[in-house]
Amino acid sequence: MTESCFTLLAKDGKARRGRVSTAHGHVNTPAFMPVGTAGTVKAMLPESVAATGAEILLGNTYHLMLRPGAERVAALGGLHKFMNWPKPILTDSGGFQVMSLSELRKITEQGVEFRSHLDGRKHMLSPETSTQIQDQLDSDITMCFDECTPFPATPDQAAQSMRLSMRWAVRSRDAFRRRPGYLQFGIMQGGIYEHLRQESARALVDIGFEGYAIGGLAIGEGQIEMFRILDFAPDFLPEDRPRYLMGVGRPADIVGAVSRGIDMFDCVMPTRAGRTGAAFTRFGELNIRNARHATDPRPIDPNCTCPACTSYSRGYIHHLNKAKEIVGAMLLTWHNLHYYQELMQGLRRAIEAGTFAEFVMDFEAGQARSDLPPL
Amino acid sequence: MTESCFTLLAKDGKARRGRVSTAHGHVNTPAFMPVGTAGTVKAMLPESVAATGAEILLGNTYHLMLRPGAERVAALGGLHKFMNWPKPILTDSGGFQVMSLSELRKITEQGVEFRSHLDGRKHMLSPETSTQIQDQLDSDITMCFDECTPFPATPDQAAQSMRLSMRWAVRSRDAFRRRPGYLQFGIMQGGIYEHLRQESARALVDIGFEGYAIGGLAIGEGQIEMFRILDFAPDFLPEDRPRYLMGVGRPADIVGAVSRGIDMFDCVMPTRAGRTGAAFTRFGELNIRNARHATDPRPIDPNCTCPACTSYSRGYIHHLNKAKEIVGAMLLTWHNLHYYQELMQGLRRAIEAGTFAEFVMDFEAGQARSDLPPL
Repeated sequence: MTESCFTLLAKDGKARRGRVSTAHGHVNTPAFMPVGTAGTVKAMLPESVAATGAEILLGNTYHLMLRPGAERVAALGGLHKFMNWPKPILTDSGGFQVMSLSELRKITEQGVEFRSHLDGRKHMLSPETSTQIQDQLDSDITMCFDECTPFPATPDQAAQSMRLSMRWAVRSRDAFRRRPGYLQFGIMQGGIYEHLRQESARALVDIGFEGYAIGGLAIGEGQIEMFRILDFAPDFLPEDRPRYLMGVGRPADIVGAVSRGIDMFDCVMPTRAGRTGAAFTRFGELNIRNARHATDPRPIDPNCTCPACTSYSRGYIHHLNKAKEIVGAMLLTWHNLHYYQELMQGLRRAIEAGTFAEFVMDFEAGQARSDLPPL
Repeated sequence: MTESCFTLLAKDGKARRGRVSTAHGHVNTPAFMPVGTAGTVKAMLPESVAATGAEILLGNTYHLMLRPGAERVAALGGLHKFMNWPKPILTDSGGFQVMSLSELRKITEQGVEFRSHLDGRKHMLSPETSTQIQDQLDSDITMCFDECTPFPATPDQAAQSMRLSMRWAVRSRDAFRRRPGYLQFGIMQGGIYEHLRQESARALVDIGFEGYAIGGLAIGEGQIEMFRILDFAPDFLPEDRPRYLMGVGRPADIVGAVSRGIDMFDCVMPTRAGRTGAAFTRFGELNIRNARHATDPRPIDPNCTCPACTSYSRGYIHHLNKAKEIVGAMLLTWHNLHYYQELMQGLRRAIEAGTFAEFVMDFEAGQARSDLPPL
């Protein structure tokens, strides 16, 4: 038995407009979750993140367990209070980061033993410890502990890895403390193989979760291959539960995934790009460090209503980035998160209005323009 | 002839409560000017700086002339528009930074030839070029180009240096384009020597400026010696013009200087400290990186109304600083600027109310407490 936590409000083709209900409030879907790795969305105050329209953040279990530690976050009131974000939080399981960031890791049936990349101390992440840590953080949406199957993988490797994740999913579910408004999502694996994706989905649905994620994508297979998998994988999941595509992506990835029935997304792209000089806009990506921006009195996008675009020139933001000024990272991060949330709002409205196909055409025409005409 | 740009509203002992009028608005004194070196107050959006109560910023001519260049700032609408700060701006002359930051500098009667610390290119700063650059930036308060006499200096060295600055002050005044609301301040030098300070003041008053600065302090002589000089130096300046003590200081320095008749201050202290984990409070300075703060659920100061203190624990800000997160710098910088502006407001109100002596006693008692009692 699982809580009813998802309302499907409208559909247009495969695209879905819904609402996820959690202990800390509602999340309108399709939703993009900014990443707050270490208990902070880098370079953004939480009230600014909320002002962009974000209704949910993602927190990283791996980072928080190592510093400041889940017990300390719990002692300081839980992650919401700790970071001053009263709205919903989804935490990942740490499974992905432990494989990509930690040192001397050893993976067994039990879980993953590893050394912290910060101080070399030994830790263990397992379905039980990951679930317990997410509980200590007071996460609204707990993710199952899984192994992200690497790309490329043979059918046999992908099957072995997926089946381990499915055994871990049973243990994650057993370790999950059920409380009203607290959700747990299972994670589908299976690599690029349709029959394995189907097997994984069946195993998860048999266990029963409040929502389902599609894992193991956006790890090097490319957009064409990702979309090919998304042409079938979401259909293996129940219609009445939210579907979360982990670690995706660029704006065009998100639009394509929504059209294939995905409801939730997270990615470091808008925040990381904001610290390295890249702006996402309705007419594509631009690098503010490019010399052509140095003397440009226009905003990044004259139609954008974010603080960076309403009050600052490209020339100024170019200058801040060249001078490595923190305010440069602050303004571009804000712009990027604003753009992402505006995109999600546009997707939601188009699905409601039954104009999703037109929205996608407009989006693609804009991206193809790549920047304003030169001055 | 100089514009009337200063209104002395009240006095309590030597402490003065006044108002400076500029092309971009009024500045209530005693005033603290946050430093916006490269066209940005580091880690603060300008609306946040204004929210702390700041009415004027300081911009650095040396940094801005090298990057992005004064002509570019002018082409992008002047410094106010460039950095989105519509209130008054004071610019220094570049004289201090060119001696401390540039390479291969050569000082002559004409000015200072130097190579940029950024790209090694040759530049010249002189009374004429410095004044012209400040005009291009559209600075409300232009500073004379001077030589900051090093400490220590013999009477002869201090005299030579001061007299060069006085000859440069004549040339700076000649180069200044007079417009309503645009002010130029002369800078008193003379080291630690009373007769030289007096000679310098007379030379400046003979030229006639809208305001006067005291330069060459806070460069290693220590607070006791600085206060000894401030016991006489401000008295050499006309009562009806603002007095600006350059590069000062810590809160106790400011309180002591206001009691000796100073009206305006600037210092990188609150912003720089905000990026290195130090908080200024009514009970002294604390280093948030100290381990005792890691588990402390209390704010930096429970009486403080800044965003860092109303919404975040010491434990959280400790964590952000340990993790080198930008938001840690943002919150502590905001707190420090808020504290400084609240201190200035307290000084202004006390002078108005004739309770300056009590205010200073309370301030000193608070500073002596050094932090809240441990939990």
